[in-house]
Amino acid sequence: MKTQTLKGFRDFLPADAIRRAELIRHVTEVFELYGFDRLETPALEYADVLLGKYGEEADRLLYLFEDNGKRRVGLRYDQTVPLSRVVAQYPDLPIPFKRYQIQPVWRAENTQKGRFREFMQCDIDTVGSADPLSDAEIIAATLSTMSRIGLPDPMMQINDRTIFDQLGLTPAEVIIIDKLDKIGREKVLRQLMDQGRNDADRLFTTLESSQPTTRLTSIFEALESYGFKRDVSFAFNPFLARGLDYYTSTIFELTLSGYSGGSLAGGGRYDRLIGTFSGRDLPAVGIAFGFDRILDALADLHLITDRTTATQVYVTVFSEQMLQQSLRTVQMLREAGISSEITLTSSDKLEKQLKYADKKGVPYAVIIGPDEADKNELTVKDLRNNSQERISIANLIHKVTSDQ
Amino acid sequence: MKTQTLKGFRDFLPADAIRRAELIRHVTEVFELYGFDRLETPALEYADVLLGKYGEEADRLLYLFEDNGKRRVGLRYDQTVPLSRVVAQYPDLPIPFKRYQIQPVWRAENTQKGRFREFMQCDIDTVGSADPLSDAEIIAATLSTMSRIGLPDPMMQINDRTIFDQLGLTPAEVIIIDKLDKIGREKVLRQLMDQGRNDADRLFTTLESSQPTTRLTSIFEALESYGFKRDVSFAFNPFLARGLDYYTSTIFELTLSGYSGGSLAGGGRYDRLIGTFSGRDLPAVGIAFGFDRILDALADLHLITDRTTATQVYVTVFSEQMLQQSLRTVQMLREAGISSEITLTSSDKLEKQLKYADKKGVPYAVIIGPDEADKNELTVKDLRNNSQERISIANLIHKVTSDQ
Repeated sequence: MKTQTLKGFRDFLPADAIRRAELIRHVTEVFELYGFDRLETPALEYADVLLGKYGEEADRLLYLFEDNGKRRVGLRYDQTVPLSRVVAQYPDLPIPFKRYQIQPVWRAENTQKGRFREFMQCDIDTVGSADPLSDAEIIAATLSTMSRIGLPDPMMQINDRTIFDQLGLTPAEVIIIDKLDKIGREKVLRQLMDQGRNDADRLFTTLESSQPTTRLTSIFEALESYGFKRDVSFAFNPFLARGLDYYTSTIFELTLSGYSGGSLAGGGRYDRLIGTFSGRDLPAVGIAFGFDRILDALADLHLITDRTTATQVYVTVFSEQMLQQSLRTVQMLREAGISSEITLTSSDKLEKQLKYADKKGVPYAVIIGPDEADKNELTVKDLRNNSQERISIANLIHKVTSDQ
Repeated sequence: MKTQTLKGFRDFLPADAIRRAELIRHVTEVFELYGFDRLETPALEYADVLLGKYGEEADRLLYLFEDNGKRRVGLRYDQTVPLSRVVAQYPDLPIPFKRYQIQPVWRAENTQKGRFREFMQCDIDTVGSADPLSDAEIIAATLSTMSRIGLPDPMMQINDRTIFDQLGLTPAEVIIIDKLDKIGREKVLRQLMDQGRNDADRLFTTLESSQPTTRLTSIFEALESYGFKRDVSFAFNPFLARGLDYYTSTIFELTLSGYSGGSLAGGGRYDRLIGTFSGRDLPAVGIAFGFDRILDALADLHLITDRTTATQVYVTVFSEQMLQQSLRTVQMLREAGISSEITLTSSDKLEKQLKYADKKGVPYAVIIGPDEADKNELTVKDLRNNSQERISIANLIHKVTSDQ
């Protein structure tokens, strides 16, 4: 019997699951503040829906199989293609359609590169508006999300792919330019020359001195009206290219000074993808948050909760005679909104009960012996520093609530 | 190009997704109040982990396939087997281990029976305690969850399978008795006779007059200490059997007077399942909530939100000159914690902007023309009754906040 997870797949035990849930709660709140509505799509789609949308390399990473009814099906690979299918399938959706989606995706990646085969994606997208306001809104929502979760000095790099088009760059050349941050100017120039781009050097200078497009100028104005400062929270970066080939104009990527693990979110405008599903072209813009990378950055900057349990108070059982008293106490705590446990091994010695609470990471333990019961009090131990005191349940509730 | 979902799979557009998220938020809160911690396991497991755990019929409903690395894998079928694997895989987990898990599962069910192939499961389980307190806690948490989500008069039917063992009933006979509610006494008696149980009538009378086991008596006492009343919130039901064959003693099922769609949650004690993974037997008890059925009951009893969007205020753009004003207003509303949108088709006529907000189901729309801007006011339309007034942004914030 195998008692292991598949390579690239993870269990999230409470300590991790608590952090993940907290992050999801925060990003969801901001997304909804910005008027994005929740969407969920199935884990399985017809293989046809997925194939040919992400490029040849990605097609090989799809989890495809034949189901019991001999249908070719595949696991969700991202959330943009399912969104496009949804928009095509429900013509009555109010357009523009603004949605957020936070669901796992599956990719048969090479795990040696530190990649996961199951990971959470976290996207906001607006479908059906070509207005630069919708690009600005996606960027603003992303910046607000970072500030809500406490990540300092986020900076959105912004570019417009039409600049590359105007300079006559091929997709292959754009992919080379996209590597600038990773491989440096010299290597980019060499690779461009190898592609037959003899004017690589001049091209570089032209890019360096290029100006924001009309669309970018409108986006920047809107961001400033929103209260974000240029070159502080967002910047024009004419070398930003981004990998995916479905982007048609605006592209953006979020970096964090003080975190070297790469960009935390990336997206752009893709005005032709939806048309491949619905026949009717609908402009769209969106961003995907790197969920694992954001958690990594939070840990890196020591900004993450280190709770290993949601439980705040552990109520021990002093003796069989005192069980009812303990049960009533734990229920009063719960009714006051305090996550509480009662020992489930009531025949264990008090010492052992306390040890369990401590191992689990519960901050407070409560003891109710006959003496405490007589005086309508509790002995409360703070397991973090081993101090203890006798207080009333009302005072315990106050104490724990003001801890939060 | 297929623009459809697979049979038995569902998209959740905002109106549904909002309800589902709200339900998840409520149940999560109660689970954590009772000291259950969050666990997440992968969607895919080794096929070996899943096969042979649920019975032959269920094995046929598993989504099994070969992945790109030629491994036999399968999609999560329930959350109990993954929990058992987790407990076996991480020997350092604090035991008792109390966890909740809310993730989708996949079963290749016959959709003609109104069943889904992808649906949410919502479980709490305690592993490593044989103490009746842990049975009582699962039951108490379930009853508290129902009261939190507003479902009236929940009743937990409780039985102990050892009663069947003592009467020498075979698993096949137990399955027949389990159908009592559906097919009635006469048919149950006939089917028992067909199985060669000639004393079926006497057996029935014996069951009717049977008394709670020692374990059940302790559970009932604990529930009463918690404040739940026997025969009001919970009851002994010697005919309750439940289908799954891994239960070893306590079993329970939640019904709702006023809802005829079946039980909303069911579970019990399974003291031998974990041992099949880890070699060490660990007692366990848990319950699974019927997520879709609870949503159905809430809808049936008109207890469900009818919001189609999270957005509370829609800020129109009066003219290009007024855009900046509108952007600032929408951002102030967001900073005050109010979900707000600004029109993303700013060249549309005001009429069309308002029509969109109304179609989407946003309650309030804001208009800021030059006159409003001069006086530092807003025109606020209540789209539900078409009334309108001129107020300050502070008053709008107050109005919307007190709506919530």
